Amino acid sequence: MARKKNAFYAQSGGVTAVINASACGVIETARKHDDVIGKVYAGRNGIIGALTEDLIDTSKESIAAIRALRNTPSGAFGSCRYKLKSLETHKREYERLIEVFKAHNIGYFFYNGGGDSADTCFKISQLSEQMGYGVQAIHVPKTVDNDLPITDCCPGFGSVAKYVAVSALEASFDVRSMARTSTKVFVLEVMGRHAGWIAAAGGLIEDHGIPVVILFPEVEFDEKKFLARVDALVKEHGYCTVVVSEGCHYPDGRFLAEQGTRDAFGHAQLGGAAPVVANMIKDALGHKFHWAVADYLQRAARHIASKTDVKQAYELGKKAVELAVKGHNAVMPTVERVSNVPYKYRIGVAPLAKVANVEKFMPRDFITADGFGITAKCKRYLLPLIQGEDYPTYENGLPVYVTLKNRAVAKKLSPFELK
Amino acid sequence: MARKKNAFYAQSGGVTAVINASACGVIETARKHDDVIGKVYAGRNGIIGALTEDLIDTSKESIAAIRALRNTPSGAFGSCRYKLKSLETHKREYERLIEVFKAHNIGYFFYNGGGDSADTCFKISQLSEQMGYGVQAIHVPKTVDNDLPITDCCPGFGSVAKYVAVSALEASFDVRSMARTSTKVFVLEVMGRHAGWIAAAGGLIEDHGIPVVILFPEVEFDEKKFLARVDALVKEHGYCTVVVSEGCHYPDGRFLAEQGTRDAFGHAQLGGAAPVVANMIKDALGHKFHWAVADYLQRAARHIASKTDVKQAYELGKKAVELAVKGHNAVMPTVERVSNVPYKYRIGVAPLAKVANVEKFMPRDFITADGFGITAKCKRYLLPLIQGEDYPTYENGLPVYVTLKNRAVAKKLSPFELK
Repeated sequence: MARKKNAFYAQSGGVTAVINASACGVIETARKHDDVIGKVYAGRNGIIGALTEDLIDTSKESIAAIRALRNTPSGAFGSCRYKLKSLETHKREYERLIEVFKAHNIGYFFYNGGGDSADTCFKISQLSEQMGYGVQAIHVPKTVDNDLPITDCCPGFGSVAKYVAVSALEASFDVRSMARTSTKVFVLEVMGRHAGWIAAAGGLIEDHGIPVVILFPEVEFDEKKFLARVDALVKEHGYCTVVVSEGCHYPDGRFLAEQGTRDAFGHAQLGGAAPVVANMIKDALGHKFHWAVADYLQRAARHIASKTDVKQAYELGKKAVELAVKGHNAVMPTVERVSNVPYKYRIGVAPLAKVANVEKFMPRDFITADGFGITAKCKRYLLPLIQGEDYPTYENGLPVYVTLKNRAVAKKLSPFELK
Repeated sequence: MARKKNAFYAQSGGVTAVINASACGVIETARKHDDVIGKVYAGRNGIIGALTEDLIDTSKESIAAIRALRNTPSGAFGSCRYKLKSLETHKREYERLIEVFKAHNIGYFFYNGGGDSADTCFKISQLSEQMGYGVQAIHVPKTVDNDLPITDCCPGFGSVAKYVAVSALEASFDVRSMARTSTKVFVLEVMGRHAGWIAAAGGLIEDHGIPVVILFPEVEFDEKKFLARVDALVKEHGYCTVVVSEGCHYPDGRFLAEQGTRDAFGHAQLGGAAPVVANMIKDALGHKFHWAVADYLQRAARHIASKTDVKQAYELGKKAVELAVKGHNAVMPTVERVSNVPYKYRIGVAPLAKVANVEKFMPRDFITADGFGITAKCKRYLLPLIQGEDYPTYENGLPVYVTLKNRAVAKKLSPFELK
């Protein structure tokens, strides 16, 4: 019993349709290993919960409630945007984390997030050794941006990709119907500030007969070339669809969304890339347009989640606990692709030292030579990730998503001030 | 055989997730009545197809293809925005329609659309009598705006309502997760230029614990009152969701989306209501926001269509043909609600004279006293319409939607110039 330790789990950064499926994997698996893992405490609002000793006792949640996490989008314990900076300048915060872990007999740290949290996770594992209070730190990958290295894909991405492909296909059918007398160009803005993985998913509708132009953050925006491409597609097909990444930018680095726009009172206006692209087409080519900005709808869309994605999210959470039980530290479970058709993968493991602070962009050979589409190689990569549907149950017309009780653990330490 | 006539079917105005389900109902039912109905010709791009004698021979489509229309969003034959004006000033066009019908032995006119097309349908029935070539004109209701009179609801609306409620629920869970350190207000813009039915659907998430503010076109926008409401909700819950109708406007009639916004070059910028509302909140209350504009995604979202809506769309198409076979003219099949719980309805019939040019707005007792929410009465009305899921089949991760062959019927008349 001496070595039985509690676990800490926290969600970090932008949430996804399946991050709770990872939480479900972590908690269900930890419950199975109750010989070595005591309670699973979750951080209320991510790592802030650990810093402020605001811990949630997940043992108060029923088996059914934890099970329901698998089908519930968003972060059930709250997430946060709070980057722990360098160990040198912000040692006070790292030390506080270890202090909280010590006070609550926490020996396992599961951090569910993207690149920044992988970095934090790595630092905590290092510091805990230095401070003589050993904490096994395991990172559970999560990011709709799909930009973590080593792992073949990141949980959250497959579902956004499916949402974008399905939505773009449906809206394209719509535009095609209207093009004779009305809308000829539909512009859909999707997430991805640095990497174009999400925008790339829009390219999958090409094989369904839809003329589509993709604007990636990896390709510098060339207005003239872009307008020529749209013009050619509208002339040939009567309509076209444009999928633009929010990170699409000019050669000088300025985002398309930054137009220096002012309202009637001279206030700077924030807008999306989609209306900018749409108006550009209208001004140059005269085509009637419609545009949509999917924003949170895309990453929260559990109703159209990829079954593959949900499964992997769960499995990676499960694997994180299994790695911890086996004594691993400073690692992240990964998806290792074995084959495309049929899609086969296995869950692997990567050292955090190699994960932290590395961003994975779209390879050049995933983007067509003209920069406006995806290659066959990219399609072979993407298609397995959107396979399968994993519908939530519905009651009274709406999905049944769980809201946990989130009971607090009694505090043992003096308050800590966030800076 | 003398009385056997062909039928003409056309889709009009903005398409929906289920207008093709009505087409399916019309064509399948007409095929069953082949003793009195010959072929079903569809207008390519709506009524323009009739004017230009660009008819599609639906008999060339397989049983499976017509069946697949039930699950395919958009308008399979093309739609158009082309309003036939008054009989007095545009008699030439109405006469051309009768001429085309005569040339192709068309005795049944099925027009699938909203208020304007109901009016056209009515006029055609009147004129055909005057011109001595009897055409039975039956209107099949369709509009996401849900603003047709007499019928309890309009096909297309239930599915948009479901999409909006599901999406707003999911995004609200997302914001709730992020609110501690990041986004506190999520703004979703939905369709509805004149009537707030679609925005109202956002109010259904209130019963799932979400603090939500609805901005209806029926309620004049009061910035001060609105900001106070948002402020109170964020103070109480830590976050809130705003669902704003594109038709939301100031007391002087100016739409929120019209902000007189100029880009760096002084060009007027078109934007949505959502970014305007979001920036208003940021400026006054300082909250971080996210906003989405669903646009076509909402009305094309067959993947999350309401089963009730799909069923009614089909049944109204079917009933239209049955009414025609029974000799009815200048009518529209309707949905007559019998009870809310359990939801029961029957298909009725309304004279077109009473349908044409009447818009149905949200009743005042469907909107809460403060103008920012929906009442229990409204919820009782809306809930049955979003009941049930009717998923399309998927192949390789994407829905299987049909694209018809759309073979043209040989022309018999001289060309007609559209004005």
